[in-house]
Amino acid sequence: MTETAAARQPEITLSDEDRRGLYRAILGRRDVRGQFLADPVDDAVLARILLAAHHAPSVGFMQPWSFILVRSPQQRARIKAAFDRANAEAALMFEGERGQKYRSLKLEGILEAPVNLCITCDRDRAGPVVLGRTHMPEMDLYSTVCAVENLWLAARAEGLGVGWVSIMDPEALRSILNLPDSVVPVAYLCVGKVSHFLAQPELQDKGWRQRLPMEDLVAFDTWNGPAAAADAPFLDILRQTQIRAADGEL
Amino acid sequence: MTETAAARQPEITLSDEDRRGLYRAILGRRDVRGQFLADPVDDAVLARILLAAHHAPSVGFMQPWSFILVRSPQQRARIKAAFDRANAEAALMFEGERGQKYRSLKLEGILEAPVNLCITCDRDRAGPVVLGRTHMPEMDLYSTVCAVENLWLAARAEGLGVGWVSIMDPEALRSILNLPDSVVPVAYLCVGKVSHFLAQPELQDKGWRQRLPMEDLVAFDTWNGPAAAADAPFLDILRQTQIRAADGEL
Repeated sequence: MTETAAARQPEITLSDEDRRGLYRAILGRRDVRGQFLADPVDDAVLARILLAAHHAPSVGFMQPWSFILVRSPQQRARIKAAFDRANAEAALMFEGERGQKYRSLKLEGILEAPVNLCITCDRDRAGPVVLGRTHMPEMDLYSTVCAVENLWLAARAEGLGVGWVSIMDPEALRSILNLPDSVVPVAYLCVGKVSHFLAQPELQDKGWRQRLPMEDLVAFDTWNGPAAAADAPFLDILRQTQIRAADGEL
Repeated sequence: MTETAAARQPEITLSDEDRRGLYRAILGRRDVRGQFLADPVDDAVLARILLAAHHAPSVGFMQPWSFILVRSPQQRARIKAAFDRANAEAALMFEGERGQKYRSLKLEGILEAPVNLCITCDRDRAGPVVLGRTHMPEMDLYSTVCAVENLWLAARAEGLGVGWVSIMDPEALRSILNLPDSVVPVAYLCVGKVSHFLAQPELQDKGWRQRLPMEDLVAFDTWNGPAAAADAPFLDILRQTQIRAADGEL
């Protein structure tokens, strides 16, 4: 007796056009803070970016994510106050010129963005024992982060900016959103149409930090394991690929 | 004196073709375990998917990721043994029929996949105080997960399968790869060409768990916060979008 063969996708490699679209979304994605427009987000577009999130990988097919749309002015004001408290504490940790620069940066768009969205992880969604989470208990949190990244890329393709607000006491967020103990607030996102997307990440533009050379981030077999002589062509291609990406195309 | 305006991207919304490409990668991405081919992966393709990872969002533009290509047979054998130990422990946690099903699943492709890749997070990469990590210390780990998801989507578009092996004691992995204390092994990935991609996630095909209805995962203003009457059209669009996605297109 043979098992019915599982259905297959028709394509293995996507078309050049499809690949180009994916790479454009990846290279053009930005963390948006200051460019939000007040225009409402279309329901169909919001549904598509949530669907993209829902198709993230998840450990044991757990799908631990939920999506809380934060809309009431009262809730937004509470969230903004929680950010302001945390940001004042954070600013004190940067000294001198670095502290001045920190204070000059706009780091959230909570009140300006038409959509605020908290993506959470319900650690109990599939019971206590989850396939693939037995030895890495953080895997369900990581699955939820994959959902955030899928949504972020879909938003870029749809012309929506996303900003991840991480300067916030998670316990404050938990209290404001009334989350049960088993639910972790993974990402608080501001989402909306934008006036434009910056060509480079804002922190790069403002001289906070620069993009690292890829070849410094690749090792072989162990941490800092050196390349073999035979790896020289690969490392050269890696450098060339990064140069092309800096020009906006892969 | 005015600051020079930062350069902008030419496009806000990507073209219909570009969006389609992104959604195809998102909807067609699978966790691959059993479909790897031995064919080598082209250097240019490997460089592009690593570049996609490097363009993930990162807290404070920290770029905390590194990429260890694990190639020697000795290292692969050690990794496989670490998986086997953890998997034997994991199998004992599932009882009865569930345990039988667990044992029947293929959960890794460590020796079959031509490329093994560990993506790590160096928590010290930008010094002790990182913009955006002050109140959520896990943000650099989350940035690294975004890099994993970017690489996974790029691999799907390039016709490469990726499988995330999470059934492993992270301390064993740390020891095998000789990671310093400040470096966390976030993801151990098997990467390679595939015979085919399954139409549905394998755990869904095999009846382990089913895809959840999106509308059950959306709430308003608080955890389980109910929809208002005015939200009915949005929820209807969400249902329709999920139906279209199940047919493979958004």
